Amino acid sequence: MQKSQGNFMQGKFITIDGVEGAGKSTQSDLIYQYLADKGINIKRTREPGGTEMGEKIRTLLLSNSTGKMHADTELMLMFAARNEHIQNKIIPALAQGDWVLSDRFSDASYAYQGGGRGLNMARISQLESWVLQSFTPDMTFLLDVPVEIGMKRIESRGEKDRIEQESLDFFNRVRNVYIERSKQYPDRIKLIDASQSVENTLSQIQEILKML
Amino acid sequence: MQKSQGNFMQGKFITIDGVEGAGKSTQSDLIYQYLADKGINIKRTREPGGTEMGEKIRTLLLSNSTGKMHADTELMLMFAARNEHIQNKIIPALAQGDWVLSDRFSDASYAYQGGGRGLNMARISQLESWVLQSFTPDMTFLLDVPVEIGMKRIESRGEKDRIEQESLDFFNRVRNVYIERSKQYPDRIKLIDASQSVENTLSQIQEILKML
Repeated sequence: MQKSQGNFMQGKFITIDGVEGAGKSTQSDLIYQYLADKGINIKRTREPGGTEMGEKIRTLLLSNSTGKMHADTELMLMFAARNEHIQNKIIPALAQGDWVLSDRFSDASYAYQGGGRGLNMARISQLESWVLQSFTPDMTFLLDVPVEIGMKRIESRGEKDRIEQESLDFFNRVRNVYIERSKQYPDRIKLIDASQSVENTLSQIQEILKML
Repeated sequence: MQKSQGNFMQGKFITIDGVEGAGKSTQSDLIYQYLADKGINIKRTREPGGTEMGEKIRTLLLSNSTGKMHADTELMLMFAARNEHIQNKIIPALAQGDWVLSDRFSDASYAYQGGGRGLNMARISQLESWVLQSFTPDMTFLLDVPVEIGMKRIESRGEKDRIEQESLDFFNRVRNVYIERSKQYPDRIKLIDASQSVENTLSQIQEILKML
């Protein structure tokens, strides 16, 4: 975790992000196992959600019964859940020296509400600064697959949630923003080719984890 | 409604605010009747809520089963509900020439999350600008009563919600911020002595409504 206020936190904050069907859950399992085997205390979590309050907001955000909402509303709900997540789960864990691995974090707001919904990136950045101040992951794995491949992978999962039901075009815009952000923040966001086998994807991640 | 973008909206946007038990519901009924009798098409609404999505967020905010949340989260949820309210109900009504009367609006966020919870006022103002841009009520009636009187009035209402359960001290801070804001924005926020009878309170409001 990087925090400019000068707090010293031993734990590392790692996030994993990408379009639907990129293999985030599978790779999270494997990263968790890899780090736990090295004797690291690591907590897994996810967004939106990760806290009791956050999971209630997640239900509002993803339930198909919620219906349409304005894109600014969606963004504020994402950041409201994220704030609970940071304050009540991520920071307390890092402060006691644990590592935290989160399935999705702020980059997803740029990709989905910015790329997908078309919200202005500077506006997203303003809200992010309001909530996170200088809080940032130490490392983000961006699992990248062509949207068509990701979509095929999730089709077997059953009913799609409110956001998963968006168009191919929507997810291509999401993917493009993720890729752009990995170029903009190359030190933090590591683009991983996740169209390969699970083993090949993991070995790319492990090479980078060794640097932490 | 005042909007600097130069949109011309015929309808007026009136809000009514104040501590619990100030008589907002009763006076809203009477204001509604007074304006309707003058042939004005007027829509009543309330915050948090006022839309389907907003009422779901209201449940999260006020339900006693929700438990504790960080003050920034509470503020973002209030503004998320408010955004739905503005976009899907208030602006469409004003645009077709109707008047809108809302039980609570943005001033409540300064009073409750700022005064009550102690959030920094400049931070609240940043989020307000992010959401509302230049959108402001044409007129706000601040019904002012000493907190002890307000509390006595609501005791007969049954179970208190998550926010109503706060301390006398909390509500005194809320009241003080409302009063300060009425001094800061005297053209918009009209402080009404609501410790008097229903009739006396209404006649103060009617005198001001004549100016619109």
